[in-house]
Amino acid sequence: MQPKVIDPSEVVAEHVYPDAPSKVVKRNLVTHRDDAPNFGMRLFEVEAGGATDHHQHPWEHEVFIVSGSGHLLTDDGLKPFAQGQAVFVPPMAMHQFQNTGDAPLQFICMIPNSGDCQ
Amino acid sequence: MQPKVIDPSEVVAEHVYPDAPSKVVKRNLVTHRDDAPNFGMRLFEVEAGGATDHHQHPWEHEVFIVSGSGHLLTDDGLKPFAQGQAVFVPPMAMHQFQNTGDAPLQFICMIPNSGDCQ
Repeated sequence: MQPKVIDPSEVVAEHVYPDAPSKVVKRNLVTHRDDAPNFGMRLFEVEAGGATDHHQHPWEHEVFIVSGSGHLLTDDGLKPFAQGQAVFVPPMAMHQFQNTGDAPLQFICMIPNSGDCQ
Repeated sequence: MQPKVIDPSEVVAEHVYPDAPSKVVKRNLVTHRDDAPNFGMRLFEVEAGGATDHHQHPWEHEVFIVSGSGHLLTDDGLKPFAQGQAVFVPPMAMHQFQNTGDAPLQFICMIPNSGDCQ
């Protein structure tokens, strides 16, 4: 199999929380369906005032902030983040990504193939 | 363990090819030393005219282009990429990231803990 370039505009945008007016959209850029053997890459876009779930799970997140800014809610308080920074969420740590800025927040979020969540 | 925000400016910049005037710098943003159980995140910066190794290895890369543009050299030819796009390099696929633009090329490159390379 050869390497490939993926343009997010060509990937289906899924509304993550369909039961409410959604402020969070996810695009699966690389998944096990691409024969990625270990982990996957998702691109999230959170509108101003929006947030991901406040939750925990047995797998980690490794995140890079592509644009915008916000706060990460943890059991250790709110931690600010901005474009160009990375975030590591260890397994079982409570977390929520909040867009507290005026612009859309975009970040990529990597997860092992053993997990899937928003 | 609590989540943490990582600012690349606070991470040591390693010159990847020390034997030559280096045009490639790497920062390990998240590694197994942070108790990341499955995979790691590195930030690469390639000067204009620079390139990573043309090589292959048993592990995959999942890449997101943070800034700049360039070409990916593959056995299937040159594939252009630009800011905001992702690249998937399957295990054992030959690849080289070339900065063919005028500005620095920045990308994050994810690898499983079983591998480490430039």
